[in-house]
Amino acid sequence: MSMTITEKILAQHAGLDNVVPGQLITAKLDLVLANDITAPVAIKEFAKFGTKKVFDPTKVALVPDHFAPNKDISSAEQCKFVRDFAREQHIEHYFEVGRMGIEHCLLPEQGLTLPGDLIIGADSHTCTYGAVGAFATGVGSTDLAAGLATGEAWFRVPESMKFIFHGTKFQKWVGGKDLILYLIGKLGVDGARYRAMEFTGEGISALSMDNRFTICNMAIEAGAKNGIIAPDDKTFAYLEGRARHSYPLLYSDADAHYLEVQEFDVSEISLQVSFPHSPENAKSVQEASGIKIDQVVIGSCTNGRLEDLRMAAEILRGKKVHSEIRCLAFPGTQTIMRDAMREGIIDTLIEAGVAVSTPTCGPCLGGHMGILAKGERALSTTNRNFVGRMGSVESEVYLAGPAVAAASAIKGQIAHPEEVS
Amino acid sequence: MSMTITEKILAQHAGLDNVVPGQLITAKLDLVLANDITAPVAIKEFAKFGTKKVFDPTKVALVPDHFAPNKDISSAEQCKFVRDFAREQHIEHYFEVGRMGIEHCLLPEQGLTLPGDLIIGADSHTCTYGAVGAFATGVGSTDLAAGLATGEAWFRVPESMKFIFHGTKFQKWVGGKDLILYLIGKLGVDGARYRAMEFTGEGISALSMDNRFTICNMAIEAGAKNGIIAPDDKTFAYLEGRARHSYPLLYSDADAHYLEVQEFDVSEISLQVSFPHSPENAKSVQEASGIKIDQVVIGSCTNGRLEDLRMAAEILRGKKVHSEIRCLAFPGTQTIMRDAMREGIIDTLIEAGVAVSTPTCGPCLGGHMGILAKGERALSTTNRNFVGRMGSVESEVYLAGPAVAAASAIKGQIAHPEEVS
Repeated sequence: MSMTITEKILAQHAGLDNVVPGQLITAKLDLVLANDITAPVAIKEFAKFGTKKVFDPTKVALVPDHFAPNKDISSAEQCKFVRDFAREQHIEHYFEVGRMGIEHCLLPEQGLTLPGDLIIGADSHTCTYGAVGAFATGVGSTDLAAGLATGEAWFRVPESMKFIFHGTKFQKWVGGKDLILYLIGKLGVDGARYRAMEFTGEGISALSMDNRFTICNMAIEAGAKNGIIAPDDKTFAYLEGRARHSYPLLYSDADAHYLEVQEFDVSEISLQVSFPHSPENAKSVQEASGIKIDQVVIGSCTNGRLEDLRMAAEILRGKKVHSEIRCLAFPGTQTIMRDAMREGIIDTLIEAGVAVSTPTCGPCLGGHMGILAKGERALSTTNRNFVGRMGSVESEVYLAGPAVAAASAIKGQIAHPEEVS
Repeated sequence: MSMTITEKILAQHAGLDNVVPGQLITAKLDLVLANDITAPVAIKEFAKFGTKKVFDPTKVALVPDHFAPNKDISSAEQCKFVRDFAREQHIEHYFEVGRMGIEHCLLPEQGLTLPGDLIIGADSHTCTYGAVGAFATGVGSTDLAAGLATGEAWFRVPESMKFIFHGTKFQKWVGGKDLILYLIGKLGVDGARYRAMEFTGEGISALSMDNRFTICNMAIEAGAKNGIIAPDDKTFAYLEGRARHSYPLLYSDADAHYLEVQEFDVSEISLQVSFPHSPENAKSVQEASGIKIDQVVIGSCTNGRLEDLRMAAEILRGKKVHSEIRCLAFPGTQTIMRDAMREGIIDTLIEAGVAVSTPTCGPCLGGHMGILAKGERALSTTNRNFVGRMGSVESEVYLAGPAVAAASAIKGQIAHPEEVS
């Protein structure tokens, strides 16, 4: 029976020969993830299961990244609670402040998310790992607790949707962020609700891993259960020396069933900006040009990787952040920070007047390190621009990729990179 | 009439030939400073004066460094309030996030604090600038408001105390922090209450500017009105290319009157650690050795300068932060951050597992970026270890210099650098 890559991963982890959309299955988990906000709830639920130990301390990842370095006493207590649990349970992949990063940048970098893996995380952007060909999805803390105890989770097999990106003639500066914002603009924020979004075509093949992570990261913003890109040579090169275990090679069958197939030509996709207060309000940057902003954020699990910082630095080199703008950069991991330093990227950013933070989710979710006051407006490379997402309910967030972010930081208003070159 | 350097500065700014301790004077100000916590209060008081404009927009410095990058919505509102005032008043020395640093590292670096200057700041560690031979003191927000409106402030001329540090044979790793902790240990936290602490002797002459800033920074921790070191060739070299205006050369007269003179031999001063909950609880590091800690903080207005980071990196090079320690570093300014990057210091710190933050006062005052939970203990290069200073009222802070901090981060407990070499 023909299956998509998503169906194959689910079938394999359920111990079944095949599965069909709508089927309820129980499947074994390769990795169970939580952060400093979600882990405490999950750990308390876990305690109710009566099992003393997690199913496998080598298959649990705990990453204090949201309100860490500890924002306040209550976040310090939360982080301590997670840390104490990690020590007591001998959790192998507990990542302490200073040795960590933003979870969705960190776990792939650490070789903990692999093709064919089945991963749940108590964080909605767990879908990021689809970029290496894993089935990865966000769950609530109760489901996570069950996963911690049993190493299994239940799933309803999602319908698959295929998105084919034809061509390789990208407009200058256009990257993964523009493709996914454009797509969410077409689909709407529930256009792929509970579905598997499979990204394919020459345009996807042409993209770097960093850009693919950005695309899969935002599958949830179209309501998807997961986003996925079949592994290819770029994936294998990325995993070389990184992968913690061997992995199967699973691909969608040529005659697999898709609920819907949508096709795009990458050459027609321009630099995108999503207007407040929804990622689906995507327009070309030209339509946003001139909108005055107060803050620019470059980074996060969506766009905090080396290529993102490199692109921002390329535009900021020799220029200055506008005097009325605070520009903050958040490298995704300590390794990305070091690599960016060695390339001179961090020096360029600081010289331009960017505040470069140690990795943290920080402002993306209105946590800390760059919160907006009433009436303020930000342009951000993060993934959500809901009302109050970055601070005051009377603030606004525009979403874009790192090129538009850097250009806007220089100009003091939303700008195309050409406007500042 | 013979005068001390402190008395000479006050007399000159009061337009008097001489002043005596206890005398009430009104003096002209060269610089008026506030931060994101104190400026809003001062600005609201200023509004009550009825003067529309500050006395001189080139002599006001506003630095959002305490809860910036904005920790939360209320700190964002505070920062916005200060920013709006700075724009409206055309304040020349408003330092935005990304172009700033910790105020007491930033203003000297910017050449805004000069020998003979009279400076008030709505921050207790304003006394730092005594290191370049200025009279600089912390004031409340109401006094600051008056300063903003009139360019003047009233003072009671303090009695002077002289502290002579003989010799230049410092024990290995001993720096300014150890001298001042040792001294506060002898004096107690009110041992110099409302007095001018004048630091002099071969031992002081031998110290770098970075170390001198550390010493004057903590004069307030002995209760002093100001700390001061007469300018010398090191001061002039530091100010070369930096000083924003010419400055007078003022020195204490040989027969100036001091309430008290205390003498020390630097060779007898060992690495110091101040135990909770007071800077005066200073002991040799050996007496603290083995105390288990959870967090190490390297940085702040006390020890966030290049030499501090360099010393920490020297000890951390090729080593790792202990798995049960969070170690956070806070370079004092963006320039210090860049210089430290170019020297490889930041790379060394990150490789060791240190989280390196953009400049902020952050954890020092329990603000953000490293707050302690109940029962946690920190070793910190900051200046205060009062109850709850860094978080929970049931946490503890030990104070030390960067060498002890780095060694303790490696060992996971308070340690002498020799214990980890």
